[in-house]
Amino acid sequence: MRKLKILGMEYALPKQTILFGYQTRYRISNFETHLSLSVEATKKLLNKLNLKIDDIDLIIGACAVPYQLIPNMSSIVYEQIYGIQGIPCIDINTTCTSFITALDTASYFIDAGKYKRILIISSDVPSKALNKSDKKTYELFSDCATATIVEGTEEDRGIIYSVQKTFPSGVHDTEIPASASRLTVHEKNDANTDLFYFKMNGIKVVKNTLSNVAKIYQEIVKKIEDISFVVPHQASSVLDLFIKKAGIELPYINIVKEYGNMVSASIPFAFIKAIELGKIRHDDKVLLLGTAAGLTINALVLKY
Amino acid sequence: MRKLKILGMEYALPKQTILFGYQTRYRISNFETHLSLSVEATKKLLNKLNLKIDDIDLIIGACAVPYQLIPNMSSIVYEQIYGIQGIPCIDINTTCTSFITALDTASYFIDAGKYKRILIISSDVPSKALNKSDKKTYELFSDCATATIVEGTEEDRGIIYSVQKTFPSGVHDTEIPASASRLTVHEKNDANTDLFYFKMNGIKVVKNTLSNVAKIYQEIVKKIEDISFVVPHQASSVLDLFIKKAGIELPYINIVKEYGNMVSASIPFAFIKAIELGKIRHDDKVLLLGTAAGLTINALVLKY
Repeated sequence: MRKLKILGMEYALPKQTILFGYQTRYRISNFETHLSLSVEATKKLLNKLNLKIDDIDLIIGACAVPYQLIPNMSSIVYEQIYGIQGIPCIDINTTCTSFITALDTASYFIDAGKYKRILIISSDVPSKALNKSDKKTYELFSDCATATIVEGTEEDRGIIYSVQKTFPSGVHDTEIPASASRLTVHEKNDANTDLFYFKMNGIKVVKNTLSNVAKIYQEIVKKIEDISFVVPHQASSVLDLFIKKAGIELPYINIVKEYGNMVSASIPFAFIKAIELGKIRHDDKVLLLGTAAGLTINALVLKY
Repeated sequence: MRKLKILGMEYALPKQTILFGYQTRYRISNFETHLSLSVEATKKLLNKLNLKIDDIDLIIGACAVPYQLIPNMSSIVYEQIYGIQGIPCIDINTTCTSFITALDTASYFIDAGKYKRILIISSDVPSKALNKSDKKTYELFSDCATATIVEGTEEDRGIIYSVQKTFPSGVHDTEIPASASRLTVHEKNDANTDLFYFKMNGIKVVKNTLSNVAKIYQEIVKKIEDISFVVPHQASSVLDLFIKKAGIELPYINIVKEYGNMVSASIPFAFIKAIELGKIRHDDKVLLLGTAAGLTINALVLKY
């Protein structure tokens, strides 16, 4: 076990909610931005923990899409919560499972004594890249920011196990093809506009990940006893079916109806909600489990 | 020391060269892309080392700007060199110094036994976001891709020291403000077109980083004896002056005239060139040192 303690977690939701039937979605409006939500979540967390930004040793931006193309997300958030100590800012990206990869990487840094206390910002505003005419994805996603602070501990808690696998045959099942170096805004025309929107073939993602998720899950429950709860990525409205078909028999949280898919913020936000609902308590072994564009499958067992 | 061995490094340059006075720059043309260069460098390296992609345990994309906004760079390159083992793909981003951060992070993974052999792809095609009317930056940058494979070793070589500091007061000195979540292509208009281009205030970057680079350099040479060579980020045509003003007295490589600033590919490419030129030999202690958007200063001492 790589010992670490989650000192605290916080989130910031947009003020605006939109209803699609019984599904509630959160979307930024007016002056809200990806950055403002990220800063709000971070400040709330620092205040709650009575910490200053200079009490942090590393800031990790763990988002699917950054606020600006350059520089990285962590630096841009840091600038808004101005500190003077030159805290290193790095971004780590495995799209929807970036939080898992960041938490896992943080545990290696802490275990090796490189950094003591690490802030992880997982936030996305997918509404900015959704295509209204693509009803399935347009009605699925919400905007959200989360902030998490972890630190080394002598207590018997931390990361017990982690595994990531990427199967690139499904690389184009979930994507924003353009806007970066492949095709820039300066090359946009009427014929390629669609490439600048997010697109997801949900059925193919399920087909391409289900058997591997099932396999990874079985390996984990064979290796690690007494996992009490699963925090899955809130990927789609068929989450219950996916969990069932993947053979996952442990209790889990499904808040897709109330909140939708929040991309990189999805897993940490669901984690916070599960704690608030009393489903996760200290000393519980929790499995964070998600699929991501790539296609990536990411799993991490944490003794909370 | 976190032991690791650089098994090999390779690069791919665009076919097209452009001359600005005595300065040579490399720019993609025709069917060349960020992705094609990255795949070319990776395939060259795998062939040279007589390895298959499935011999790799982790792929790290370490670029300033990805090929697509979603998914991450590593997955997209992996798809083109199709393997079947589900190699995990993660991206790590500190813009121009992403290679240093990736190499450093790789050393923690290897040291802890998480992964044995890691592929790092550092590549960028800045020409896609340059503004012709901004002569200084337009004439500075080149496109390039590099691939590096590192693995654990019993030999007496690896990462001796690493440090990163980010000073966000300079966060807007080097940036592409738009194209991601702050301002998408769908919000572009005549008044904000400039925000979709790369812009750099070179003089401010130098001013804002010089004293901290000098300080970090002095701390390193006090701590670590016998560093024989410096591979600096090829940030600008005033590199010689910057090195002098920062009080760096060790030999270093300056190939700005011949190749320009290659963003994330700059440090690994200069590293390769220094090896080719016989300036770095096995068992040498080498300092990789760079400034990046953020503003970040990144330094790493490697026994090669």
